Amino acid sequence: MKNKVTSVHRITSDAAGNPLRWLNQFQAEFETADGRHGTWAFSSRRAAPVLGAGPLAADAVVIVPIWKSADETRLVVVREFRIPLGDYEYGFPAGLRDGDEPIADTAARELREETGLELTKVLRTSPAIASSAGLTDEAVRILIVECRGTPSADHCEGVEDIEVRLMDQQAVLQLASSDEKISGKAWPTMLMFGLVGFEIDGLEG
Amino acid sequence: MKNKVTSVHRITSDAAGNPLRWLNQFQAEFETADGRHGTWAFSSRRAAPVLGAGPLAADAVVIVPIWKSADETRLVVVREFRIPLGDYEYGFPAGLRDGDEPIADTAARELREETGLELTKVLRTSPAIASSAGLTDEAVRILIVECRGTPSADHCEGVEDIEVRLMDQQAVLQLASSDEKISGKAWPTMLMFGLVGFEIDGLEG
Repeated sequence: MKNKVTSVHRITSDAAGNPLRWLNQFQAEFETADGRHGTWAFSSRRAAPVLGAGPLAADAVVIVPIWKSADETRLVVVREFRIPLGDYEYGFPAGLRDGDEPIADTAARELREETGLELTKVLRTSPAIASSAGLTDEAVRILIVECRGTPSADHCEGVEDIEVRLMDQQAVLQLASSDEKISGKAWPTMLMFGLVGFEIDGLEG
Repeated sequence: MKNKVTSVHRITSDAAGNPLRWLNQFQAEFETADGRHGTWAFSSRRAAPVLGAGPLAADAVVIVPIWKSADETRLVVVREFRIPLGDYEYGFPAGLRDGDEPIADTAARELREETGLELTKVLRTSPAIASSAGLTDEAVRILIVECRGTPSADHCEGVEDIEVRLMDQQAVLQLASSDEKISGKAWPTMLMFGLVGFEIDGLEG
């Protein structure tokens, strides 16, 4: 059965009837191939979500930083306060593109701002991937990169509350096997590096 | 700097002032350790989100099904219509727990409903992982499982629009390296199996 969305309207607004600044809730109506109709609620950071067959718009990047020194390799993991959880979450550095900035530049900038580390090589870039496509049109690209330097939170912006950790393979596997709060995009990647190590054939590609 | 959430209020409601049924938008106020205040918008499927240091509540499971026959191993991937995208997305079978149902039972039930396949073994269960912790408190558990049988969409519920594919390692890597719309929780797992294959030391654990 082929479904399609027939209409979308915004249900949140400010006093003047305009979209809220950071996030809005929408109601979609859809139709199934056999003619049934239904509604679906979702959230979007866009004032007017673009639904359909075009490419997903990914305005954010998640950076998976593999840190290398002369004799060690580590995975860079951040522990960050997340307001919707009211608690700390383990994940990777992330951030929003500035306008039309190339995403490798976004990754280098956000990695520097959140961790003080220097991006030296982009190994792999994901397609635009959806955070939770039943709930939101939010999408990001994951960039797996190599980096170097000494971690520092000195470049951190305003209200960010971030701690940076360099974890070896065993620590990464331990974290992925724990009951800690972990980002859903980060956990499978932590599991991979925790099980397989940091030297994976074909990772650069 | 340690942040904390000081209040949360719901900004969406029905005509009677009650929470909407499936999704609501909330406004949190937070305070930083150095005394600055701010607001943050987020979405929740809960009528009253529980923020704080307790465990994340994961009411949904994502099932990563490794299909085995006498002589072949494949990854089960679904292509599903997602209303917030208005398009199809590649990912894994997923679904909501029925009340206090053990999550391995949820995984077996949803796998059967969405693919017709029989769960034979749970290899690994993730902690509760957050879909996108800047935007929502939604959390899920990922269960990596083994399964068998013949794919069929016959058990599909109502409006679901799902196609099931059994992919070998090369097809999985090709998908992860494509520009297709892919679930953010699925892509890193697809990359892992695509690069490393289905026999990974320590995966069961």
